[in-house]
Amino acid sequence: MKRVTASAIAELLGGELVGDPEKQVVGVGDLRAAGPEQLAFVRGQRFVDLARQSRAGILLVPEVLEGLAQGTAQIVVRDVDAAFTRAALHFHPVPVADRRIVHPTAVVHPDADVADVVEIGAHAVVEARARLEAGVVLGPGVCIGAGSVVGERSVLRANVVLYPRVTIGARCIVHSGTVLGSDGFGYTPDRTTGEFVKVPQLGTLEIGDDCEIGANVTIDRGALGPTRIGSGTKIDNLVHVGHNCDIGKHVAIAGFSALSGSTKLGDHVVCAGHVVSAGHLSVPAGTRVGGASVLRGDVDEPGDYIGYPLVKRATWGRILKVLQELPDIRRALRRSDRDRSDGADGR
Amino acid sequence: MKRVTASAIAELLGGELVGDPEKQVVGVGDLRAAGPEQLAFVRGQRFVDLARQSRAGILLVPEVLEGLAQGTAQIVVRDVDAAFTRAALHFHPVPVADRRIVHPTAVVHPDADVADVVEIGAHAVVEARARLEAGVVLGPGVCIGAGSVVGERSVLRANVVLYPRVTIGARCIVHSGTVLGSDGFGYTPDRTTGEFVKVPQLGTLEIGDDCEIGANVTIDRGALGPTRIGSGTKIDNLVHVGHNCDIGKHVAIAGFSALSGSTKLGDHVVCAGHVVSAGHLSVPAGTRVGGASVLRGDVDEPGDYIGYPLVKRATWGRILKVLQELPDIRRALRRSDRDRSDGADGR
Amino acid sequence: MKRVTASAIAELLGGELVGDPEKQVVGVGDLRAAGPEQLAFVRGQRFVDLARQSRAGILLVPEVLEGLAQGTAQIVVRDVDAAFTRAALHFHPVPVADRRIVHPTAVVHPDADVADVVEIGAHAVVEARARLEAGVVLGPGVCIGAGSVVGERSVLRANVVLYPRVTIGARCIVHSGTVLGSDGFGYTPDRTTGEFVKVPQLGTLEIGDDCEIGANVTIDRGALGPTRIGSGTKIDNLVHVGHNCDIGKHVAIAGFSALSGSTKLGDHVVCAGHVVSAGHLSVPAGTRVGGASVLRGDVDEPGDYIGYPLVKRATWGRILKVLQELPDIRRALRRSDRDRSDGADGR
Repeated sequence: MKRVTASAIAELLGGELVGDPEKQVVGVGDLRAAGPEQLAFVRGQRFVDLARQSRAGILLVPEVLEGLAQGTAQIVVRDVDAAFTRAALHFHPVPVADRRIVHPTAVVHPDADVADVVEIGAHAVVEARARLEAGVVLGPGVCIGAGSVVGERSVLRANVVLYPRVTIGARCIVHSGTVLGSDGFGYTPDRTTGEFVKVPQLGTLEIGDDCEIGANVTIDRGALGPTRIGSGTKIDNLVHVGHNCDIGKHVAIAGFSALSGSTKLGDHVVCAGHVVSAGHLSVPAGTRVGGASVLRGDVDEPGDYIGYPLVKRATWGRILKVLQELPDIRRALRRSDRDRSDGADGR
Repeated sequence: MKRVTASAIAELLGGELVGDPEKQVVGVGDLRAAGPEQLAFVRGQRFVDLARQSRAGILLVPEVLEGLAQGTAQIVVRDVDAAFTRAALHFHPVPVADRRIVHPTAVVHPDADVADVVEIGAHAVVEARARLEAGVVLGPGVCIGAGSVVGERSVLRANVVLYPRVTIGARCIVHSGTVLGSDGFGYTPDRTTGEFVKVPQLGTLEIGDDCEIGANVTIDRGALGPTRIGSGTKIDNLVHVGHNCDIGKHVAIAGFSALSGSTKLGDHVVCAGHVVSAGHLSVPAGTRVGGASVLRGDVDEPGDYIGYPLVKRATWGRILKVLQELPDIRRALRRSDRDRSDGADGR
Repeated sequence: MKRVTASAIAELLGGELVGDPEKQVVGVGDLRAAGPEQLAFVRGQRFVDLARQSRAGILLVPEVLEGLAQGTAQIVVRDVDAAFTRAALHFHPVPVADRRIVHPTAVVHPDADVADVVEIGAHAVVEARARLEAGVVLGPGVCIGAGSVVGERSVLRANVVLYPRVTIGARCIVHSGTVLGSDGFGYTPDRTTGEFVKVPQLGTLEIGDDCEIGANVTIDRGALGPTRIGSGTKIDNLVHVGHNCDIGKHVAIAGFSALSGSTKLGDHVVCAGHVVSAGHLSVPAGTRVGGASVLRGDVDEPGDYIGYPLVKRATWGRILKVLQELPDIRRALRRSDRDRSDGADGR
């Protein structure tokens, strides 16, 4: 447990300290639950009452607050969320191998190229010609297929599977149960029998640096060329990325999204949860797609879209509203039809 | 194989036996397929013909049936389904460890706190300070992270992964491939570069007693506080529960549902399959949400809802009906517009 | 690496060779990326410019092309896609065990029935009475439950889990993380407490020959009878098949589809991605269901359907179009109502 002083934290965050510079904390916590040895944050005046009740030793604040508990140190920062994230990472950095630990039950092929400083967990398997770079951490039961590469300081949690010839860049995190580089869904129907003939999936999967991929995700290898995930991209749990998708840099894809084959997302695209793409379509850089949307074709201009059909966010709100009124509208129309035909009859 | 007499089963179920009390069966089966040594059930008069053709040795019935095969015993019970479930559980109880079996290939940390009577399968891993209580069964390849707790008689099937500091109560069942306590999807965008900075996920995951969690499910740990699953709650395959969700007791969540972070479901909520929640919303106790629904905000009152937009069940049926008619309605409106403008012109 | 001549490939594909019969290639590639030792394909005149720039040694073409690079051999075939698939499979056949390789860390129960020629990967587990037929390949960490059967030449990739008594036919491929035969989601509510009582899931799972099942799929065993997947059926990643589903032969189910319990799909049904079925419904042979559809009841006639509500494909296009116009329609209706009541008032 590392103890850090208020002045050291203020310096780390570039914030202004109000209170005892020697005050020490050992970690971060929630404003409601934090104790005297923890640092918490206050987003603004709205939370002042909670802040006054808080027992946290140090508070990150957007401006100096009055009436806090005796002895609470405050650090004034411009962006409270960003500052809190940095402080939290300071106490809880992503783990990295700093010495060689290869569990005796791990099976590492003699032809694998393994850096000196790595951690390989129990029952992990590293196949021939795979490369693990310095600082890599493999959890228990991880399988690294033949010829795959895991870049410097990347962390693969328990039971992650890499098929052969998958490459992962530096400083990535992949969560448990995720399968990278399995075969895409490709068949040629036999025209005489109607049976499906498997199209061998011969491409690769290339993942950039600083990516995080959630649990039980599946990302397929390309059919011929590669499937690509750009650097800095973050993918949530239970997401599917089909073969030959080309995902840009610093993209965020929230849980339960399914990108069919050859979907192309530009840099900085954000997909909220449960976005479905029909595949073979393109979304320009910077586009935001709201939750539970269905993409059936190219998105022509960057913007903030949502829904099925995919429309501008404001439009979707109106469509949902009218949808709720549809039965009433239908009824009104029927009545109006009747009135008119009655009128016609009555003439 | 245990042989049980009709009289013993009648007593177990509190039912009235009609037929030979010494008649024995060794298990349960489907009415169509059951043989003379099996018990089956008949839901009502509708199934009398099937019952007459059945070879089952014992039938659970809501009332005495005539014309059954010679020698078939009947047990009359009030709730046939509930009685059949109890009978089936009698023959096929959930497995529980009744002596110590630790497979020699399992890796159990010396600082783990493991009860005397547990079963630990091949290649399972139990990390430091983890606790396994009496009767726990871990299948092959299960990983129990440091400091996690598995309560009495809980059963984790092959390849389940618990991240560190996850707690599971007593008598739970977790199916294969499920990942409990992985990091939530939390990032702070760096305002200058647009890159995502990981927010360390420091909370826990607390699962109550008597829960069942399906295969390849993912439940994230909280960002700071806990994610909670109440006692008696049942979660189907491929469900995602985001960080800091608070799921009540005796909730049922069917397959492919995705609850985004901080979703709050009250006790006895039932979500049919494929329910999507936008997160940071609340559903009151006793609410039923139909399949393929999308929740975008709080549900204010308990009730039976479905759809997107989420509406009362009866309304949704009407909306779907009107949706199908939309092209016709559109056409009628166009015609009517034309008529009116023609009329106007003609005047 | 096998070297194959143009004449041998032409013979294999039943195509007509134009060019040097002794020309050799060692594999297949994409038209843009293929080198002189690779075979690529050209779908038609549209791609002629690409074909002319291609460095591929052999091209599969629908008709003889002019102006190709010096020395490029052409093979004219009737169905370019099917021919390419066959050529690719020739160079990259699905792996099959051709000698006995049982990794020393694998745990095979002495009562398992294992053919002589199989490959069993590191840390795999084969339980009692399981049967592995000739040519089977189990990847690392695969678990085969008691009494399960894996048919001739089937391949299970890393970390696949078979629960007890699951049967898989010959020549199947199952991708990593997939769970076959776990318990279905079946509970009887206790009428007094509102608690859920588990219904033991006693049925089986029977998978035919020549099936391929993607990564992180879940297919439940039946409650009493079997869940069935017919021969030749292909299932993509992250698909859920509930208990007692009966899936026909040569069916294709794309990613993220969720079939609730007792869904019945006839032979040659095709479900595009993300199809949701409410269960206890039937879809006739040869039906095509488009992406992101919701099935709430039986489909009465084969056809090409899509949407929610599920309608004919052409209708859905029109419905989506009207949905986009709904806010405008609503506005027009309001105006028209106002006009009419103004008119009425004015009379």
